[in-house]
Amino acid sequence: MAADHLTTTFAALASPTRRAILARLASGEASVNELAEPFEMTLPAVSKHLKVLERAGLIARGREAQWRPCRISGGPLAEVAEWVEHYRRFWEGSLDRLGEYLAEVQRKEGKHGRKPQS
Amino acid sequence: MAADHLTTTFAALASPTRRAILARLASGEASVNELAEPFEMTLPAVSKHLKVLERAGLIARGREAQWRPCRISGGPLAEVAEWVEHYRRFWEGSLDRLGEYLAEVQRKEGKHGRKPQS
Repeated sequence: MAADHLTTTFAALASPTRRAILARLASGEASVNELAEPFEMTLPAVSKHLKVLERAGLIARGREAQWRPCRISGGPLAEVAEWVEHYRRFWEGSLDRLGEYLAEVQRKEGKHGRKPQS
Repeated sequence: MAADHLTTTFAALASPTRRAILARLASGEASVNELAEPFEMTLPAVSKHLKVLERAGLIARGREAQWRPCRISGGPLAEVAEWVEHYRRFWEGSLDRLGEYLAEVQRKEGKHGRKPQS
């Protein structure tokens, strides 16, 4: 199967470094130099990660020749949010089941005449 | 950096086939045989994908020796939802900016005495 948008996005996000770069960009635009500093990475290494993020459409870069700041581009993240939303019942459901279980335990304890502990 | 939960999850989701398997499981538990059918894949190929999903904690498998049904396990998806939620303003923001732009265009058109088209 050809790589679709979502596959490219998930592959780009499957890296702690690239997610850390996004987290840094969440607080504002930054140049490659600024991004390289906190990560103690070489410029080529950072550039490589940025290319992956850019190819996935997760970041966009300014057009200024000298200082091409990177910024987050939200589109692919919106796609991820939309995709995961379809599965919400699978994690909310487990909390519901836990709630049902606890209610059942309390009901049974009540039946046997035990008083709830305070 | 060592692979963390989220990295393993995103890597597992970076496959159209594995996402299709999750979509199938969203409508109910299924055995490996049942999963292999619609994908026209060999059992070993499906098993390989299931192992990746299982290792990421995205699916769990029943204990019955004969029929080990697979089902979605919501935990890692909840983590993905929580992670992406931090970036919500980056896609909602762009809709806001589009709204501001359209409002500005309308305001300017009003200034020049043009009547809105109906």
